[in-house]
Amino acid sequence: MSGTFKLRGYVALATELRSGRATPRTYLEETLRRIAQIDPGIGAFVSLNRDGARKAADASGERWRAGGQLSPIDGMPIAIKDIIETADMPTGQGSPLFEGAESKRDSASVHALREAGAIVIGKTTTTEFAASHPFHTTKNPHDPKRTPGGSSSGTAAAVGAGMVPAGLGTQVVGSILRPASFCGAVGFKPSVGAINRSGSHDHFSQSCQGAIGASLADVWAVMRAIADRTGGDPGFVGLMGDVNFGAPAAPKRIGILETGGWGSATDGARQAFSVVRRKLGLAGIEVRGRADDPEIDEAERAMADALPLTQAINAWEGRWPLNTYADRDAGKLSAPARERLRTAEAMSQTEYGELLARRAAVRAAFEKAASRYDAFVTLGACGAAPVGLGSTGNTIMNVAASLLGCPAITVPILTDEGLPLGLQFLGTMSGDAALFETAAWATAAVFDRKDLVGAAAG
Amino acid sequence: MSGTFKLRGYVALATELRSGRATPRTYLEETLRRIAQIDPGIGAFVSLNRDGARKAADASGERWRAGGQLSPIDGMPIAIKDIIETADMPTGQGSPLFEGAESKRDSASVHALREAGAIVIGKTTTTEFAASHPFHTTKNPHDPKRTPGGSSSGTAAAVGAGMVPAGLGTQVVGSILRPASFCGAVGFKPSVGAINRSGSHDHFSQSCQGAIGASLADVWAVMRAIADRTGGDPGFVGLMGDVNFGAPAAPKRIGILETGGWGSATDGARQAFSVVRRKLGLAGIEVRGRADDPEIDEAERAMADALPLTQAINAWEGRWPLNTYADRDAGKLSAPARERLRTAEAMSQTEYGELLARRAAVRAAFEKAASRYDAFVTLGACGAAPVGLGSTGNTIMNVAASLLGCPAITVPILTDEGLPLGLQFLGTMSGDAALFETAAWATAAVFDRKDLVGAAAG
Repeated sequence: MSGTFKLRGYVALATELRSGRATPRTYLEETLRRIAQIDPGIGAFVSLNRDGARKAADASGERWRAGGQLSPIDGMPIAIKDIIETADMPTGQGSPLFEGAESKRDSASVHALREAGAIVIGKTTTTEFAASHPFHTTKNPHDPKRTPGGSSSGTAAAVGAGMVPAGLGTQVVGSILRPASFCGAVGFKPSVGAINRSGSHDHFSQSCQGAIGASLADVWAVMRAIADRTGGDPGFVGLMGDVNFGAPAAPKRIGILETGGWGSATDGARQAFSVVRRKLGLAGIEVRGRADDPEIDEAERAMADALPLTQAINAWEGRWPLNTYADRDAGKLSAPARERLRTAEAMSQTEYGELLARRAAVRAAFEKAASRYDAFVTLGACGAAPVGLGSTGNTIMNVAASLLGCPAITVPILTDEGLPLGLQFLGTMSGDAALFETAAWATAAVFDRKDLVGAAAG
Repeated sequence: MSGTFKLRGYVALATELRSGRATPRTYLEETLRRIAQIDPGIGAFVSLNRDGARKAADASGERWRAGGQLSPIDGMPIAIKDIIETADMPTGQGSPLFEGAESKRDSASVHALREAGAIVIGKTTTTEFAASHPFHTTKNPHDPKRTPGGSSSGTAAAVGAGMVPAGLGTQVVGSILRPASFCGAVGFKPSVGAINRSGSHDHFSQSCQGAIGASLADVWAVMRAIADRTGGDPGFVGLMGDVNFGAPAAPKRIGILETGGWGSATDGARQAFSVVRRKLGLAGIEVRGRADDPEIDEAERAMADALPLTQAINAWEGRWPLNTYADRDAGKLSAPARERLRTAEAMSQTEYGELLARRAAVRAAFEKAASRYDAFVTLGACGAAPVGLGSTGNTIMNVAASLLGCPAITVPILTDEGLPLGLQFLGTMSGDAALFETAAWATAAVFDRKDLVGAAAG
């Protein structure tokens, strides 16, 4: 893997922050320095609030000094995908229709981050409306000729380049897991409903707000700090569990999933993944795949068409707001957006009902198999980030978790073409905390990457 | 009942519109004339788009002439509660923070109305953020000293005064049913999720977008035209059924509900309701209440605390956006809004989880009883609209339907103090179409009010 950039965690610094050997302000200044040095070549950020960040860091420093820090992420600089509203910075949604648009309010998640003492440092690039069209030309920190993935392009690139310890993203197809895999960062797409999406322009029924970070502990701390203050989507209690990152826990049984994506995986990715299975077995875990368990095979068959099914569901659900944006200025919508709108307008409510029933059936098949496993693993992406900035890469290894609505984590344990590749862990709906325990155990005990677990020393 | 104003339906005119004896433009001009005459004394509208309405009416007229009308509501002038976004008019949310705020987009429902050929004539008053504080001083059309109810104050007043045939409202406690009852109009709060709320500032888990109209047929046609084009909330197929209003259907068994509100009903309202029970029985319907059916009694006990339970759920879910609005200018929030925010900030995610579990238990108790009934009836409000414009009246007869998430319709069949009072019908989740059939049957066959059914002659 490219050694160009080192991931920079934050929550592991708790001991130093408590003792005063490190301060939020010095951490922030290093963050701002790295952004100034690196971001001109990457283009992860669309806006920065340096003054606000410095003020917030100083206030956080006072709290740590007094032992009154508000949360494990007090003082952590966090990047916000530019589909999520912020009171102090515009929310451009990756669209010329909204460049510079000021909503003057924070999303529920951003407000919760501020309440937890985190530092909202800037907004990061997104594809147009968090869908497929790359409006900005953000580059992969490991190779500027390659895409960082999308739609959470800027957040993944900023974390992967070691600019920030964590950032918010959103996923409805593969928009958190894929860019995290491509950029060599930890990515987490929670259970559907687990993080309050109010004030974010991701309104699909499969959509989730999640995080990309330098370690499992950083990602967990960010997500729990949000849920603790603003819960899940209305009607969902939201992500539960200790606000401090829990101890890794060894699973008994892990399932292997191909998903509909396996046929599109590169040779290098397949090879990397074969090592995973072997290592898990050597660690004493019972590992089974579709060849060993008919229920896994049934789940695999059910989710084989996850991508077209997801695309059809999203088309109907995305009819609005594309229709009212088209009224306003259709010339400012990308060709793919206009095509999605045409697809939606040719659909009927009854067809949508049938799609929902198909999704429920896929979920039921997965849950049946999942009841006997601690977690499932698959590839975090089809391979290394592809060359070219005109596309953000293939979503097909990530869409299963989106369709299933289940939690998924990708950890940059593997490599392909000498570049980062994630190992993806999938859990059962609302089993987010348990999935972190399993992923942390595998990351540390099986792959010897304690740095990617990243918990505080004491 | 006050004979001051006559409700003005639209869908019953289909035959005349087809033959050319009536046109959308002449209907609109009468509408605008009535608004100019009556609204200065009522204050239902916050903005009007006369030019846009006239243009839309002429286009609709062309379609009717050519036999190419887009829906049963093609050419219908519709009022939009000012919590719902419109591309051509500001969305003020009943708050000084948002007066004149232009989102430049339509909500999903408003866009669907335009696609169906309806005429978005203006925006109607709402209490602050569709909650309790009456920002505007809209008056009840039947008595200017009395409240029209809220939060859908302007829509109810505009329909009740015969200005428009229908308008959109929203309800999370009692914001559609109560003002419809007070203003002598038909009100419909659909099943949770039945109408796509995207682009409306009502994001609570119990919240619904619904309609207030001159007749059951008008309300049904508006709601079905929307759902047909934009479905329910993401993940919900949305309100289903024939786009044309179905035939009334006689029920076999109707349950009587007191809900937690009965103790607050006026003597006049109780007296009016006693007639309902007798008349239904005379019509050959089996009628039972909590005294006759232990399962109804159990449901009544379960829903007795619907109001405080709803208020607690809404407090947590309303933490955002009140927190970010308070950051912006707390002085522009009403005292009740600041109090709700304080309540929310004292709550925990775990408490919210317990509230959701309590709500699920109430719903289960109701569904158990409901399986053996075609519908339930109760009062549409505690009585006639109370005197005074400082409060929008007691929500307690309406909150049961909100907590249950079930469909509810109020029809202005009863009177109290010589003023309108609704008869409320409650159905089972997603049983909206069947509930309309029962309500239409009772309205026509039992109470001899075919005018309030309002279906087209041919």
